[in-house]
Amino acid sequence: MLSADEQAIRELVNKWQCATASGDLNLLLSMMAEDVVFLAPGQFPLRGKDSFADAFRAAWDHLGIDARSEIQEIRVSGSMAYCWNHFTVVITSLRGEPPRRRTGYTLTILRKTRSGAWIITRDANLLTADPGRG
Amino acid sequence: MLSADEQAIRELVNKWQCATASGDLNLLLSMMAEDVVFLAPGQFPLRGKDSFADAFRAAWDHLGIDARSEIQEIRVSGSMAYCWNHFTVVITSLRGEPPRRRTGYTLTILRKTRSGAWIITRDANLLTADPGRG
Repeated sequence: MLSADEQAIRELVNKWQCATASGDLNLLLSMMAEDVVFLAPGQFPLRGKDSFADAFRAAWDHLGIDARSEIQEIRVSGSMAYCWNHFTVVITSLRGEPPRRRTGYTLTILRKTRSGAWIITRDANLLTADPGRG
Repeated sequence: MLSADEQAIRELVNKWQCATASGDLNLLLSMMAEDVVFLAPGQFPLRGKDSFADAFRAAWDHLGIDARSEIQEIRVSGSMAYCWNHFTVVITSLRGEPPRRRTGYTLTILRKTRSGAWIITRDANLLTADPGRG
């Protein structure tokens, strides 16, 4: 039996995927903290909503992103939670380049706001190119 | 001013580095949960103390590991905390291969046990080879 908090975080993960697929940047921004940090291997941390928005606009200009996730675990303690996911992402280019597939895990920290909504505060993205599928 | 919990987590991070350098596997195991999960790009999750011990013994047989960390952030909520670190690791081979340098971030989830000690439960390791230093 899922708690209300776990259910809310599951819905956030689903909403995130839909907003990514449809390119709904405002919806994505509403799901993260002002001081959000996104971490990925070999990259500088992406700090804050504005940096995320810039990176998203630059990618969305010429890429389509279809992400599917399987939630591995959600744990909640007070106003903090983490969510561990497995992702399969297919990135299609609007410039005619072949699609790329990336798979792997994410570990995400969430915070419950005063209004009771959960938002993303820290995210570690461990996805790598899936050479088997090009 | 650091809280007692933050101070305890800082000490855990320092103890972790010393135990890694000296190869003190029992000390490392005492700092993690039975069901610990270590995540790294392109690898299957390392699940549980036994898997960690096997991987550590295999590496320690022929490697020296010198890790330096700068803690970026520690946040605590109830019995859950996360710690975001920047690491520089130098791996020396006892078989005469040239040393390798890895840098990057980790995002670690910790849990407070009933005895009041903090232990590692989930860890995302985003370190990559540092090509500039070989």
